[in-house]
Amino acid sequence: MLYSKLFPKTLKQAPADEQSANAKLLHQAGFIRKHMAGVYNFLPLGIRTLNKISQVIREEMDNLGGQEMIMSAFQPRQLWEKTDRWEGLGKEVMYQFKDHSQKDVGLAITHEEVITAIASQMVHSYKDLPLYVYQIQTKFRDEPRPRFGLIRGKEFLMKDLYSFDISNQAHQDFYKQCAQAYLKAFERVGLNVLVVEASGGVFSKDYSHEFQVLIDSGEDKVVHCQKCDFAQNREICHLDNRGQCPRCGSEIVISNAIEVGNIFHLGTRFSDALGLSVTDESGKPVPVTMGSYGWGPSRVMGTIVEVHHDERGIIWPDTVAPYKISLIGLDMELENVRRKAEKVYKLFGVEGIEVLFDDRVGPSAGEKFADADLIGILYRVVISKKTKDKLEVKKRSEKNTHFMTLEQLIDILTRHKFS
Amino acid sequence: MLYSKLFPKTLKQAPADEQSANAKLLHQAGFIRKHMAGVYNFLPLGIRTLNKISQVIREEMDNLGGQEMIMSAFQPRQLWEKTDRWEGLGKEVMYQFKDHSQKDVGLAITHEEVITAIASQMVHSYKDLPLYVYQIQTKFRDEPRPRFGLIRGKEFLMKDLYSFDISNQAHQDFYKQCAQAYLKAFERVGLNVLVVEASGGVFSKDYSHEFQVLIDSGEDKVVHCQKCDFAQNREICHLDNRGQCPRCGSEIVISNAIEVGNIFHLGTRFSDALGLSVTDESGKPVPVTMGSYGWGPSRVMGTIVEVHHDERGIIWPDTVAPYKISLIGLDMELENVRRKAEKVYKLFGVEGIEVLFDDRVGPSAGEKFADADLIGILYRVVISKKTKDKLEVKKRSEKNTHFMTLEQLIDILTRHKFS
Repeated sequence: MLYSKLFPKTLKQAPADEQSANAKLLHQAGFIRKHMAGVYNFLPLGIRTLNKISQVIREEMDNLGGQEMIMSAFQPRQLWEKTDRWEGLGKEVMYQFKDHSQKDVGLAITHEEVITAIASQMVHSYKDLPLYVYQIQTKFRDEPRPRFGLIRGKEFLMKDLYSFDISNQAHQDFYKQCAQAYLKAFERVGLNVLVVEASGGVFSKDYSHEFQVLIDSGEDKVVHCQKCDFAQNREICHLDNRGQCPRCGSEIVISNAIEVGNIFHLGTRFSDALGLSVTDESGKPVPVTMGSYGWGPSRVMGTIVEVHHDERGIIWPDTVAPYKISLIGLDMELENVRRKAEKVYKLFGVEGIEVLFDDRVGPSAGEKFADADLIGILYRVVISKKTKDKLEVKKRSEKNTHFMTLEQLIDILTRHKFS
Repeated sequence: MLYSKLFPKTLKQAPADEQSANAKLLHQAGFIRKHMAGVYNFLPLGIRTLNKISQVIREEMDNLGGQEMIMSAFQPRQLWEKTDRWEGLGKEVMYQFKDHSQKDVGLAITHEEVITAIASQMVHSYKDLPLYVYQIQTKFRDEPRPRFGLIRGKEFLMKDLYSFDISNQAHQDFYKQCAQAYLKAFERVGLNVLVVEASGGVFSKDYSHEFQVLIDSGEDKVVHCQKCDFAQNREICHLDNRGQCPRCGSEIVISNAIEVGNIFHLGTRFSDALGLSVTDESGKPVPVTMGSYGWGPSRVMGTIVEVHHDERGIIWPDTVAPYKISLIGLDMELENVRRKAEKVYKLFGVEGIEVLFDDRVGPSAGEKFADADLIGILYRVVISKKTKDKLEVKKRSEKNTHFMTLEQLIDILTRHKFS
């Protein structure tokens, strides 16, 4: 992509009405635009990063045997009344309204009702289980206090997987596998997470588990041991800061955190309410045990920025950067330099390496470097009258520059090695 | 994908409450499930085909220099009041309601307001033009009479591109290029379309253009010449069936059709209302000329089924089939046949060829063939105790079978040649 054509360009200033690092930097660097409180449009750079984040969780869910589908946002009232959630959860945070024919509809904040209703038509025998289905789909939530950029919004992207198992044992095994897949997915997008016990809600006596990123700007509170893996959401844990870990006796601390994923045991709450059961090998009816697993790509995107930025801008992990390389042409008014830069840009294309090429004539080297630092692509590659046969390569997160040939750089990039 | 694991399996019967071929076959074959009138969930087979259709139009829009982004469904009332569309168009077909804070919001049926508002903040100079942005995004429309399966729904996927040009001449050039790109995209997904003149609406004296697929089941009426390219929507053309073509004098006919795309001249209607203008080279303010270009992947999916099916099921064009190959293992209870089929399945995977493998033990050959015909993947490959070292290959649309080695088939598939 030519930066001269990219919509839009970076801004000199962050917007005055945003407080959080993620909203400020993503706006200033040209990834998002606020549309209403808690509602953002994703610009061309933004959709690239969001898609890369979604692709990571898609691959991990596919590896678990998850089958992707996509369910509608619209929800009929009758379906949610069968699980007693039209009132309560529904009234609290669900957008509910009447269509022109005066029917009550809502916008989905979650899809247990729909997927269980679909499964109840199609799943009849133990042979139809296990079943793991997921979607990456836009959710709507009438958030009373939308804030914190992409972290707490009214319209956001969610990966939600639903599991259907023949027994609690089979469910527990899958639940653990999914937790492992989540850890891998968070690692791949550059987030260190803590697995935190939380309330199982009305569905289960078992804890649910949250995946929390410890960070000062976070709005959740996590009570966690400094030695062992004890960690609970403060909502269910009344230990004091610097108290004693109930598991190992070491000191516990209370930290701010952002919740980026959660997994729930649903038991037979929804399968009972919506008539989903199967026959086992002896022909006896057995209830189906369910689980629900959320992972929010847009919230993850905001959290990555909260964690990975400095005073100059965003520092994307390579896996989710909108482009692999930020190619900067300096001295672009010189015919031979321009021609060389254009040639290198094309050669990257031939190799399938995604490049954002700052081809502008006019802006100074300092301005171009500042824009690249703000946007935060991992590899910065400079071509100028000084670089001659080489490329000047620098990682966004490092200070040192390296001079190398195009062949050397492509070799490094395609082998994923760069020190 | 193993068919034994696929969610869900085909059904013996089409649903009784659907009339159209697309809704019946897509339900019966396991691509979609109706959720409410005019609202469908896309099951694993369905999302694969829908994504392939979206990818075709994405590539064509990228080739035009379109930049992909994604805008929110939520729309604030104030923005639509600036263009006088909150009442009128809005009240007619837009879902409008109050959120918990009693603010008026709507769900987008189109995005001229939003994209023009975003562009007005970012586009100031002739150097920022032309600008072509698009999205592939879920639209909501309070359709009073939802019907015809995926063709006329309340929640559907839409590719909408918006063009911003410095002059009417530049706009007209792009408009023609986009029409060409649409023709190519429709050809790639197996649809023959007629370009039909229609009302430009309140925006323009020029005609808009619809892309219509002529088919008896279609609900639109198109007046078109049997010799020349004269074609108009009956809404603007009052010629009789078998009347005289105003362009060449030949006979015209009136045909039923399905509209699968449309392109509009917007002039400066939205840029004027939302304050979008640029300065030209002399520093003089110039209004920005806009266009709007719709192409509906989910409606296209329904239309493909209307066109391409027979009494046994769907016949997908290869480009949009959920898998490239329907691999059928017969005699799967025989260890050596099963092992061979599994090996072939793996080898296709190594070659990157997507396969749906009917690995079930139990169903007869007839049942497996019927399921494959219903699902409609182009290439059917059979392995049985009779096929020995060869594969039995048949195209869904043809009667003859061919015996060949795996190497021969892969060679044909990867070179896209098969007679």
